[in-house]
Amino acid sequence: MTQTHFFEPPYPVVRLSPKAEARAIRHGFPWVYAGELVMDRRTSNLLPGALAVLEDSERRPMGVVTVNPQSKIVARVLDQDPGATIGEDWIAARLARALAHREAIYDAPFYRLVHAEADGLPGVVIDRMGDLAVVQPNAAWAEAMIGPLVAALARVTGVSRVVKNGSGRARGLEGLPEEIVMALGELPEGPVAVPMNGATYLADVMGGQKTGLFYDQRPNHAFGARLARGGRMLDVFSHVGGFGLAALAGGAEHVTFVDASGAALALARGGAEAMGMADRVAARQGDAFDAMEALAAEGARFDVVVCDPPAFAPSKAALDAGLRAYERVARLAAPLVREGGYLGLCSCSHAADLAKFRAACARGIGRAGRRGQIVWTGFAGPDHPTLPHLSESGYLKTLFFRL
Amino acid sequence: MTQTHFFEPPYPVVRLSPKAEARAIRHGFPWVYAGELVMDRRTSNLLPGALAVLEDSERRPMGVVTVNPQSKIVARVLDQDPGATIGEDWIAARLARALAHREAIYDAPFYRLVHAEADGLPGVVIDRMGDLAVVQPNAAWAEAMIGPLVAALARVTGVSRVVKNGSGRARGLEGLPEEIVMALGELPEGPVAVPMNGATYLADVMGGQKTGLFYDQRPNHAFGARLARGGRMLDVFSHVGGFGLAALAGGAEHVTFVDASGAALALARGGAEAMGMADRVAARQGDAFDAMEALAAEGARFDVVVCDPPAFAPSKAALDAGLRAYERVARLAAPLVREGGYLGLCSCSHAADLAKFRAACARGIGRAGRRGQIVWTGFAGPDHPTLPHLSESGYLKTLFFRL
Repeated sequence: MTQTHFFEPPYPVVRLSPKAEARAIRHGFPWVYAGELVMDRRTSNLLPGALAVLEDSERRPMGVVTVNPQSKIVARVLDQDPGATIGEDWIAARLARALAHREAIYDAPFYRLVHAEADGLPGVVIDRMGDLAVVQPNAAWAEAMIGPLVAALARVTGVSRVVKNGSGRARGLEGLPEEIVMALGELPEGPVAVPMNGATYLADVMGGQKTGLFYDQRPNHAFGARLARGGRMLDVFSHVGGFGLAALAGGAEHVTFVDASGAALALARGGAEAMGMADRVAARQGDAFDAMEALAAEGARFDVVVCDPPAFAPSKAALDAGLRAYERVARLAAPLVREGGYLGLCSCSHAADLAKFRAACARGIGRAGRRGQIVWTGFAGPDHPTLPHLSESGYLKTLFFRL
Repeated sequence: MTQTHFFEPPYPVVRLSPKAEARAIRHGFPWVYAGELVMDRRTSNLLPGALAVLEDSERRPMGVVTVNPQSKIVARVLDQDPGATIGEDWIAARLARALAHREAIYDAPFYRLVHAEADGLPGVVIDRMGDLAVVQPNAAWAEAMIGPLVAALARVTGVSRVVKNGSGRARGLEGLPEEIVMALGELPEGPVAVPMNGATYLADVMGGQKTGLFYDQRPNHAFGARLARGGRMLDVFSHVGGFGLAALAGGAEHVTFVDASGAALALARGGAEAMGMADRVAARQGDAFDAMEALAAEGARFDVVVCDPPAFAPSKAALDAGLRAYERVARLAAPLVREGGYLGLCSCSHAADLAKFRAACARGIGRAGRRGQIVWTGFAGPDHPTLPHLSESGYLKTLFFRL
């Protein structure tokens, strides 16, 4: 296995075609797209995840990359030093750097530890929940090097349990199979308790929905909780209770969760129970659009309504339909907000940029006969860093409107 | 005076030209630009700040506006109800709505109470500091109605002192003179103490630099303070100590302030004294660029460096030069950050949008031979709401890079 992947230097050489953006890569852009690499027979035959030294078209070495001839992103820069050896020690150094940043910000070990390219580990996502970590090896090199990766993770952080979550769209694009397994330690007994913003969340780390919990909304949860103090919140597309449990912890009087998944609602309710606040929550299982229409028909009004739907515009092709869906969310949610109350609208769609998403929300609010000021524009929290060269990594957008 | 301004209904009628964007105004866009209004002799003769009923080109009433034939923004929508009477009661209702939002968010009465158009009071900025308020009447109507405005402000908020700060660029565009006077109550004896993010700031409300204090950076100050816990911060363009005093309150070991203004540095030092932390600050008076070069020559390194300069690109004409200035700030500041430390870069330039500002910062960091991940993208705090139709109101951008 090691041999065929060329894990030990000297690595084979791959070469940029003359039309490739060598300058951008030198300045830190981490990807080489299909067509930018000279696909001679040897390069075409590299196994997905193979390591190689990247040269520019004039044969100057540019760094160590991982190659996946089957992917649209045919190479990802691992290290700008062409002499780097990619192994457990190299991974450990990247992890240590990532850990220092999270430890500077958070008092407790619950955060996204590695956010892929921006943390120097392309295609690798690691969420930490105390002594457990969930690794998403979304690029072939990480799948191939899962052993050294898990070993380095245990060494640097001291976690005793590691879940390998091999699900999700990104893996399909890399030609990787779906699987969720323990890579280290024992299977957790039941959901894992995660403290965040003063609330307790329950994460089903073996359940398959990403890493079982979304840390990215942390600052936006905190802001929504601030708005909901002493009031009533409707948390639509609640998943395990992201906005609602934070609101309860922040002093909200009551939260109604809406989600299509009974399992997610059970975890949201379980979180409220763990906080001793089960009497302050209600749950409605079903289609979020239907539920909002039903609530409007009942004349329900809330101080704060938050809608954090799945990505409606995951790709450029889905953009127009996605923006219409965001507009519809806003149109159905706005009537549920009392006069002077707040509406939080979120998008985790890469393709819908902030201006387009904001406009879709404003249109929906307008079509509901309401007006809104924007009082908050939030992105993913600081444990989700981005590369300045890779604007796509800034996927999450959360707006709060006052109506 | 009242007569010539037409403060009492019925108001005179002004009419949109057929080419004007009536639809946008109906959907909440609050401005009519010069050339979009039929400038017949009567409209041209209206005094700056006069009230009028706006009609579309087919003579359908659209609302009450304030007209300033001398301004590029020739009319500003005050109320979409053409029958509204603009007076103390009307202003009081707008203030009460604005106050409810701030009281929902903040525990203490220190905030921007009115952020102009987004709070339904076009061209009016009001900062509250406990029982004192600073009003910036940056549009002619507000200058003309300063009496009812101050009376409504005292009635709704209970403030006993009101400073009218008539300085700044916006007033010049409206043809208004510069003056800073007490509009209600006694002149404060010395600077006003303002608590924010656990720190104490001293605001010289009669000194002329806007309202003496900038509330807009509050969430970004808080994030910077988080990064600086236990470490050393360099606060460049510190003004009265925005980032640095918050960092001290959050547990920073030491802060060095740099500003060209000795008066601002004295207030920053005074804030540290009021916090009992005068022994943890140093100050350098002088040009910020020179100071950063001198610090680099001395080999100084900090855990966190923040640069919050004045607007380098206040207009589209100044954009290119402004972006070069932001790049230079980043290039000079980056070498002062230790490996793995943080660099905060701010822009309050309307003309430089987030993408352009981010690119300028990344270029500057790159030219200093450093690399950065973006860990924070922040805007003005929630007491600075914006209209979705008026992206210009989103002027403030703060980025934190980890280097």
